[in-house]
Amino acid sequence: MRTAERRERLRAVAAERGLDAVLVTDLLNVRYLTGFTGSNGALLLRTAQPDLFGTDGRYTTQAAAQVPDVEVVVDRGTVAALARAAVRGGAGRIGFESHVVTVDGLAGLERVLTDASDGGTVPELASVRRAVEELRAVKDDDEIAALRRACAIADAALAELAAEGALRPGRTELQVGRELDARMMHLGAEGPSFETIVAAGANSAIPHHRPDTTVLREGDFLKLDFGATVDGYHSDMTRTLVLGHAADWQREVYELVAAAQAAGRAALAVGADVVAVDAAARDVIAAAGHAEHFSHGLGHGVGLQIHEAPGIGPLGAGTLTAGMAVTVEPGVYLTGHGGVRIEDTLVVTDDEPELLTLTSKELLVL
Amino acid sequence: MRTAERRERLRAVAAERGLDAVLVTDLLNVRYLTGFTGSNGALLLRTAQPDLFGTDGRYTTQAAAQVPDVEVVVDRGTVAALARAAVRGGAGRIGFESHVVTVDGLAGLERVLTDASDGGTVPELASVRRAVEELRAVKDDDEIAALRRACAIADAALAELAAEGALRPGRTELQVGRELDARMMHLGAEGPSFETIVAAGANSAIPHHRPDTTVLREGDFLKLDFGATVDGYHSDMTRTLVLGHAADWQREVYELVAAAQAAGRAALAVGADVVAVDAAARDVIAAAGHAEHFSHGLGHGVGLQIHEAPGIGPLGAGTLTAGMAVTVEPGVYLTGHGGVRIEDTLVVTDDEPELLTLTSKELLVL
Repeated sequence: MRTAERRERLRAVAAERGLDAVLVTDLLNVRYLTGFTGSNGALLLRTAQPDLFGTDGRYTTQAAAQVPDVEVVVDRGTVAALARAAVRGGAGRIGFESHVVTVDGLAGLERVLTDASDGGTVPELASVRRAVEELRAVKDDDEIAALRRACAIADAALAELAAEGALRPGRTELQVGRELDARMMHLGAEGPSFETIVAAGANSAIPHHRPDTTVLREGDFLKLDFGATVDGYHSDMTRTLVLGHAADWQREVYELVAAAQAAGRAALAVGADVVAVDAAARDVIAAAGHAEHFSHGLGHGVGLQIHEAPGIGPLGAGTLTAGMAVTVEPGVYLTGHGGVRIEDTLVVTDDEPELLTLTSKELLVL
Repeated sequence: MRTAERRERLRAVAAERGLDAVLVTDLLNVRYLTGFTGSNGALLLRTAQPDLFGTDGRYTTQAAAQVPDVEVVVDRGTVAALARAAVRGGAGRIGFESHVVTVDGLAGLERVLTDASDGGTVPELASVRRAVEELRAVKDDDEIAALRRACAIADAALAELAAEGALRPGRTELQVGRELDARMMHLGAEGPSFETIVAAGANSAIPHHRPDTTVLREGDFLKLDFGATVDGYHSDMTRTLVLGHAADWQREVYELVAAAQAAGRAALAVGADVVAVDAAARDVIAAAGHAEHFSHGLGHGVGLQIHEAPGIGPLGAGTLTAGMAVTVEPGVYLTGHGGVRIEDTLVVTDDEPELLTLTSKELLVL
């Protein structure tokens, strides 16, 4: 199973850091490592003993089905039960996720470890930082397949809406957004990847506009930023089109963003520094005098979260690896007039990046 | 504005606890206190100075629109910026949400406070525990109105599906679940309240079954547990019906659960202990010899979260107050055969509780 391979990779990290066990409590990290999709689950990964998966009585059946290869501990106090098991197993040094465990959670964990040690040596708790998130940044084949399906649903939903004439003057942003969401659900999405952005006219200049009752008008930019979730994996795509007819300034801005986006995609290569990838697109926009109108990073990793490692922006750090799934989404936003963003989801490979969002990037005039 | 009234209530709590300020970082608590719906926001509530709302550059416009009555601080390091402002304002004792702030987050906050104090006295950090959640347990009129709309959408979605014959033998649980979700979206929901549960036949005996490709068959129980989200507020309703014809054992189990649910609803009164409310329903089921087949608590608060205070179960604590919105959802689950759960969302009032989910609770045979 893929999840067993993922646990082996984390086990190697734990051993390297001198940890006897890692208590994984971030629910998405738990899902990644075990396949469990319920709302309460934790994993005690151990370097020299079998792993334990913990959940509560609501999920006894589900845990047996989804996590058949790890012993399941059913306990209302899930994390405490795993911590006690770690002490019984003689763990001396236990890793925990300090970016996830709350202040109250850590205090509770320390109490449990002290009580369970019963006067003996209390195990030391050591942060593992974002060890699982770092593994998650590089997708395996199962994950890429889920992302491909999620992107295909977003592509199909937009194509159907456009073909049916649903993107036309007179409709509201909210109507379009709800139809896009309903269409994705109908095509098999578990839900939208995030709150769908539909921004018409001057609203398209707001990077993260929430759809409202603004009416679409002839000559407007219409910016759609949306995605579908499939098996927990998120797609992310932005397309900007024009209603009725495109003015010269709209074509100019669009072509500029399209050129920057192509440059960004072309820079996605194994070993590329994320700051350089951002710069490849940003330089195109800056050279046209619009540096100040591109106010966010170029992209981000996508997977079980809509935003995850790696971040691709001027303040990012690190290089790309084959299997990373990322977005490339430059934009130019002219306050009061309108804005354009073009975004794809892609997978970094040893060769060309694989494009997962296949909707055309030619300027569409509907 | 309602949000200003809510902040005044928290200010009174802070003053009573000797805090100069409270740094609210839980995003739902921030939404409750300010109206802000973006993905990054925090509130510095102060007892003797004006409050400050913090967010980042993506939300400058949205913050101005949604939080017009609080000064907005735009900073990429949102929480750090508010912490520095608290130091500049001379705060000596700052409350923080220890059940929300992570171990890494607290370390970062302590660093910022130390740096900002510049050699002077560093403010003390003190947990406010779940002070905001306690306020949130009692809903105001705006919140109840949103819950009413969310429940009405769930009612209408189920009625439409039943009227169209979508709940019939031959279809799969997944098809029914997706149509219910799509219907709620079409009716104006922002999304489902949670992953919709559709459980047919023996699957209905699993309290939290995930819909799969199980085909609905004549004579099956069909359990539907679902809800709609409106303005961030969640509805929650379960109905169990029978396909084709009901067997005697199905009618018996159904009538038992319906009687327990009515007893639970009747026990919802101002001042009632949550353990007694749970017992009112549980005793009915136990008297029929099914105590072991009702394996979860009777209900929970609903609002900006699908599960929030108060919990109504054998291990709960506290009494009911007018304005609390809660579910009442007993069930009897016969492994391998089938199960029944009947759930409503209601508001506790000084008089009878107000029923928000209006779908009939007569056994429906479709």
